Amino acid sequence: MVLRVGVVGGGQLARMMIAPAVELGVEIRVLAEAEGMSAALAATAVGDYRDVETVRAFAREVDVLTFDHEHVPHDVLTALVDAGVAVHPGPDALRFAQDKLHMRARLAELGMPQPDWAAVSDRAGLQDFLDAHGGRAVVKTPRGGYDGKGVRVVSAATEADDWFTALAEDARGGELLVEELVDFSRELAQQVARRPSGDVAVYPVVETIQRGGVCAEVLAPAPHAGERMSQVAARVGVDIAEGLGVTGMLAVELFETTDDRILVNELAMRPHNSGHWSQDGAVTGQFEQHLRAVLDLPLGATDPIAPWSVMVNILGGPREGGLVERFPAVMREHPTAKVHTYGKDPRPGRKVGHVTAIGADLDDVAYQARAAASHFLDD
Amino acid sequence: MVLRVGVVGGGQLARMMIAPAVELGVEIRVLAEAEGMSAALAATAVGDYRDVETVRAFAREVDVLTFDHEHVPHDVLTALVDAGVAVHPGPDALRFAQDKLHMRARLAELGMPQPDWAAVSDRAGLQDFLDAHGGRAVVKTPRGGYDGKGVRVVSAATEADDWFTALAEDARGGELLVEELVDFSRELAQQVARRPSGDVAVYPVVETIQRGGVCAEVLAPAPHAGERMSQVAARVGVDIAEGLGVTGMLAVELFETTDDRILVNELAMRPHNSGHWSQDGAVTGQFEQHLRAVLDLPLGATDPIAPWSVMVNILGGPREGGLVERFPAVMREHPTAKVHTYGKDPRPGRKVGHVTAIGADLDDVAYQARAAASHFLDD
Repeated sequence: MVLRVGVVGGGQLARMMIAPAVELGVEIRVLAEAEGMSAALAATAVGDYRDVETVRAFAREVDVLTFDHEHVPHDVLTALVDAGVAVHPGPDALRFAQDKLHMRARLAELGMPQPDWAAVSDRAGLQDFLDAHGGRAVVKTPRGGYDGKGVRVVSAATEADDWFTALAEDARGGELLVEELVDFSRELAQQVARRPSGDVAVYPVVETIQRGGVCAEVLAPAPHAGERMSQVAARVGVDIAEGLGVTGMLAVELFETTDDRILVNELAMRPHNSGHWSQDGAVTGQFEQHLRAVLDLPLGATDPIAPWSVMVNILGGPREGGLVERFPAVMREHPTAKVHTYGKDPRPGRKVGHVTAIGADLDDVAYQARAAASHFLDD
Repeated sequence: MVLRVGVVGGGQLARMMIAPAVELGVEIRVLAEAEGMSAALAATAVGDYRDVETVRAFAREVDVLTFDHEHVPHDVLTALVDAGVAVHPGPDALRFAQDKLHMRARLAELGMPQPDWAAVSDRAGLQDFLDAHGGRAVVKTPRGGYDGKGVRVVSAATEADDWFTALAEDARGGELLVEELVDFSRELAQQVARRPSGDVAVYPVVETIQRGGVCAEVLAPAPHAGERMSQVAARVGVDIAEGLGVTGMLAVELFETTDDRILVNELAMRPHNSGHWSQDGAVTGQFEQHLRAVLDLPLGATDPIAPWSVMVNILGGPREGGLVERFPAVMREHPTAKVHTYGKDPRPGRKVGHVTAIGADLDDVAYQARAAASHFLDD
């Protein structure tokens, strides 16, 4: 018997599932959007994930279908499930990752701590929310946003006019999500894995440092998190995984407020940038864990293998040449750093790789990871 | 720029280079002996490694050629080098791994500690050696042996008659290697990595436990090795790597004698079973290190990431069904164990996978690795 996992999407998350699949001895197949993508080594098909026949043909050759991203349309997913395909996470769970209004409404039902929020369909509704929240708020398009896209801080209702106009022209109609601007001291992320048969594994809560709306680095575990904060974060992660029926990896992005509360910011139902540290810093990395979870295998231990792990993204990369030209310098100066690159061409702001370091001293670990990653950037 | 490593041979050692190649962002291509081998995911060619044109065509598409095994004929290797192919380890070094008589002679020149040995071409010569060494000795065919094959303990010169006959019929002629039967307390292995430009990285010396001439488990570092023993082993490893001009990973299999000496048993110029622990137990695993070394990149840190690592081979596998049928039980009972399988069908005695565990308590770590591995075997 061979276990075969099919991954829809050929990006770096699919790529990073290849190593643990090969190590374990699980067959991995990728349906890539195009030739030459990050996960090209395992790409057995190239096609449009919005086309149900394309995805169904791909799914015929695998035991379980999972994802590099959350963009496969809901009707495609439900057609697959109706055709008997094992899809993890399933369409009912993915809806909450695909639509932030659905997510907010469901988390409210579950009693999860959230920022104040509302669904607004016009300028007047948005102005009412602004008036009730000190004149500033975050407006989000419910669908399609990531890495800061589809997110806007506004202090006047007119600043979302273009989005309202677009909504009015969209046959599906719809509303914008508006959220209070949270006074947070830092951002955290809680990762959990959940099997279809129910078992859950919880990673330590981590601190994520964003720059320009994009994850720049992750400290694991979150420094000074404390027992209570860690337990609350873990509880929120497990409650959401169970409440939403998530299978595979779930990342819950959290705000830690200045008054020591935790509020849920965003969800991702897949391996997530906030968990890359676990590749080198935990007994079971998130990519192996995701494979185990979607295959309904028992989950691996989530313990860190060192007191501290730090992950620093390589954002953009060098202006001239590729990443590998920088290998000699980074490897010579940082022999303990773990370098990960994604086979993507450098481009400003693009996530093209990351570096992790682990060890007993947080300052040293953070220095190693940051300094190593900086070799891939121009001054 | 993309760095492209070509691996001759599609076995599990080539397979285990895939994960670090993908993680780093190095392209890996494999010339496999057949379809469906362990390293099939990266196999871009299938052909006979004894055919110089086949290997040369494969080598055209890569920056450096390296190996899953040491069986590529010397004349093929030299033809590649003459054609300008970067080959690591090179033919001059590989000769010493391919021919145990060459190896013994060269190690003698280097002053390395060895068992008494001799080249014998007939029964009389073997009898002389037996008479001088208490009536028992180890006879080895200089070429082609591995995992106990081509090795025989004899107490009468007639016991090697078939090999002498075969030698007489071999156009290349030749001699057998005979070695004293070493009174050893245990076996050790020293791994080092060496770049073409000269840098060397040294792993901790490990204890290897053989059963029936095949590696069964590895304890890293070797328990009770002591500072002096560790330094001697490291020195022997470095001297051999430098003296023989090895590039890539070198494993030196050692006897620890009952009178506390170290003697060189065998050499392997590639990642080796005695180093599998490093995949999960060292900052830089031997497969990543081999890629870095043959690409002449700076070598990674070889520090263990836990006080103890234990690797246990899965030899044979279940009589019925495949390895993955055992995943649920092993993963449920041993969530900290790291399972590696090679995509090979179970067969008595065959190396089909291994399990590693790491931690602070050797007894517990060894228990976890052994118990986890035992799930893959029938009673």
